[in-house]
Amino acid sequence: MASTRIIDLLRGDLTIDPDQNPDHLCTVRGWVRTKREGKEIAFLEVNDGSSLQGLQIVLSPTLDDYEALIKQINTGVSIAATGKLVASTGKGQKVEMQAREITVFGTADPETYPLQKKRHSIEFLRTIAHLRPRTNMFGAVFRVRNACAFAVHQFFQERGFLWVHTPIITASDCEGAGEMFGVTTLDLQKLGLAGKPVDYSQDFFGKPAFLTVSGQLEAEIMATAFSNVYTFGPTFRAENSNTSRHLAEFWMIEPEVAFCDLEGDADLAEDFLKYIFNYVLKTCPEDMEFFQERVNDQVMVNARKIIDEQFERISYTEAIAILEKCDKKFEFPVSWGLDLQSEHERFLAEEYFRKPVIVMDYPLGIKAFYMRVNDDTASDRQTVRAMDILAPGVGEIIGGSQREERLDLLEARIRSVGLNPEDYWWYLDLRRYGTVPHAGFGLGFERLVQFITGMGNIRDVIPFPRFPQSAEF
Amino acid sequence: MASTRIIDLLRGDLTIDPDQNPDHLCTVRGWVRTKREGKEIAFLEVNDGSSLQGLQIVLSPTLDDYEALIKQINTGVSIAATGKLVASTGKGQKVEMQAREITVFGTADPETYPLQKKRHSIEFLRTIAHLRPRTNMFGAVFRVRNACAFAVHQFFQERGFLWVHTPIITASDCEGAGEMFGVTTLDLQKLGLAGKPVDYSQDFFGKPAFLTVSGQLEAEIMATAFSNVYTFGPTFRAENSNTSRHLAEFWMIEPEVAFCDLEGDADLAEDFLKYIFNYVLKTCPEDMEFFQERVNDQVMVNARKIIDEQFERISYTEAIAILEKCDKKFEFPVSWGLDLQSEHERFLAEEYFRKPVIVMDYPLGIKAFYMRVNDDTASDRQTVRAMDILAPGVGEIIGGSQREERLDLLEARIRSVGLNPEDYWWYLDLRRYGTVPHAGFGLGFERLVQFITGMGNIRDVIPFPRFPQSAEF
Repeated sequence: MASTRIIDLLRGDLTIDPDQNPDHLCTVRGWVRTKREGKEIAFLEVNDGSSLQGLQIVLSPTLDDYEALIKQINTGVSIAATGKLVASTGKGQKVEMQAREITVFGTADPETYPLQKKRHSIEFLRTIAHLRPRTNMFGAVFRVRNACAFAVHQFFQERGFLWVHTPIITASDCEGAGEMFGVTTLDLQKLGLAGKPVDYSQDFFGKPAFLTVSGQLEAEIMATAFSNVYTFGPTFRAENSNTSRHLAEFWMIEPEVAFCDLEGDADLAEDFLKYIFNYVLKTCPEDMEFFQERVNDQVMVNARKIIDEQFERISYTEAIAILEKCDKKFEFPVSWGLDLQSEHERFLAEEYFRKPVIVMDYPLGIKAFYMRVNDDTASDRQTVRAMDILAPGVGEIIGGSQREERLDLLEARIRSVGLNPEDYWWYLDLRRYGTVPHAGFGLGFERLVQFITGMGNIRDVIPFPRFPQSAEF
Repeated sequence: MASTRIIDLLRGDLTIDPDQNPDHLCTVRGWVRTKREGKEIAFLEVNDGSSLQGLQIVLSPTLDDYEALIKQINTGVSIAATGKLVASTGKGQKVEMQAREITVFGTADPETYPLQKKRHSIEFLRTIAHLRPRTNMFGAVFRVRNACAFAVHQFFQERGFLWVHTPIITASDCEGAGEMFGVTTLDLQKLGLAGKPVDYSQDFFGKPAFLTVSGQLEAEIMATAFSNVYTFGPTFRAENSNTSRHLAEFWMIEPEVAFCDLEGDADLAEDFLKYIFNYVLKTCPEDMEFFQERVNDQVMVNARKIIDEQFERISYTEAIAILEKCDKKFEFPVSWGLDLQSEHERFLAEEYFRKPVIVMDYPLGIKAFYMRVNDDTASDRQTVRAMDILAPGVGEIIGGSQREERLDLLEARIRSVGLNPEDYWWYLDLRRYGTVPHAGFGLGFERLVQFITGMGNIRDVIPFPRFPQSAEF
């Protein structure tokens, strides 16, 4: 008999044809989460990963080899169960299964299986990343992660954006080689013992190569041919930071839009966030309820603010004025020209506006060379068309900018930050031939999942986190 | 005025409300592909990347500064055009625009802009990968690539599979370190001059780290929690092969299904291919017509075979018997126990069955350690539950297997191929605790795009190909 996903049974999405199947028989397959033995009866909760809740399966002594079966079945055991689906009399579930046949695929020794009923610390679970997806919490995390990821694609595809795959390995170390991982086929052991300079001509790419920190520059190439594109792929930082917000390997989303200015970019980013949150609330209601109740009681409030509130839009200069005037004591100084710190961002979103805020037009001195210089700013307060989106509960969630599309200004900016325009020959060609106003933004996918789920540590929203001294699994 | 995508105009998807917009005015933005000057009139073909065909825009001397405008506009120039959409009297397009206003964003010097009207060799275009997306051919390739990529997600999401992100950087070199790229933050220059053994404790991860060659083993982790999962991410091979079928960096799709045997795996793979081809034919008909007419006249025949034919299923042993009996002279020997070569695979799919073929149950000696050993085979002809899908026009397109779920047999296999079971502690845990029959397959995304488009070289179906001595852009 074909098996049914437990979520379809729980949601009542399964229609059983009484003519074809008068006994309402169905089969589920999954892993036993709990076993309760009563007098002459046993209850199993079986989970197949399709939903937070499992299916309650009732075993009675009429089953073949009942005693032996009950003994064999413990937490972690994999089974198939065929039986009749009936309305449940117990609380907590609408339906349950009266088992007629149980097949055990694989046992799990209760003496050694690490996931017993008792609660485990999240730190311990991190050491068994191959088993933690079988817990309620990580089941919910990875279902929501999947929903977010698919929503990203659906949002952009509905709007005619092409998903473009920008390179992972890159030979351009232009954006700060210090924080990049090197990629090589040279034998490091031999190299170390050689006692002579490295010969990159013997390396795979014939020169130093690195893992990408951003696909933006290549996305701009694609946007100047297809108008609307986005990347969604892994990016890397070799920063030695052991924080709850940093990963060495993470996924990033970077849309890039031709014929678009900063205001259009902000519109897109706002629509994007609303869409993702809506999609997750709609498709993963039980998981979101779990996060609200067990992880962070601000999760639903923050989600509703993203969905329901129109994002406030202010200039950086206005933001500085608000921060200077307020009574709040900040750890870091506030002054025109300095970057906003996390405490400032959270004050604006959480206390002052109490909703998401888009801060635009930052000082030129603190932003990247490719951002468009504003024409009308005084020379001592030059700004660029950059924006950051600040959200209650998390702070900065999206950063974007309109790009400098004017060849001469871009070249001057590259030089002024000490880079060599020749290294950017192809990037400059985009301004040389049919240049267009364009804009885009970037957001770290794991930060988004962290924000939605309320999970405290970014290492717990990616299946196998990479950080200093750790590349296990 | 908000702009309209050219594909929506060409497909007639745009409804113009005559009350709101009595003049049928609209605006498009894009890049000029061609300019034809007639007497007192000029025709531009403008492309915004949304479709193969551009929009014809008619310019008449009633426009402001007509002469200067015409002089400025050449191939590659970016413009916005507002005008009236009318039925076209010329052949080749249903609608055209009578321009009322033209804005030039960026010029393109016809003396230096590399993409002039004349045809360029595909090899030359590879050297300007930042401009080739603006050609008809690469426009079509990357639109089809996007359609394929989204279809992959949609196929799996509709079936309740979770997209899981398996790690890119891995410290396990278990699957053949020789072909893997090393990842390091050590300073190679210093290392070379040091003249002493490399100290990995100083490296970012505290030990040698590599770029992944497959996410399968980690996908198995996720399948034993969520039942149905798939990966879709970059993978790497440091092979020094300069062929039309190999890339150092490519994207791979790897579904993994719990409670599934090899037959179920084959069903899934066949459904998958039919779905992707159907989706591309439906969403990119003009692009597919282009490939059929300009690139490879077997493209549509091969696509129809995937969609319409039920895939033939034979055992490896049967395949060998067919190859031994046929009259065909092969370059490579055919004999039970040897792997099938490309010529054998293509003979089976193209000449013998003339449709896609799934070959199952390969000799144990030529397949990976994780494939399930068949129980009922004679000891001198032991087979494993592996399958390859062979398609007319391309040969092997998918490889998969049922995985060995029995702890003792898997451990023995790991040892017998000279690996250390301790390195696979977490992989073995999946068999130790609640093991389940499971299966999956893998396919290289670029090979799929190459197959669908008929493009001869794999370097032309990825925006920025990586291969020996080349990591440009």
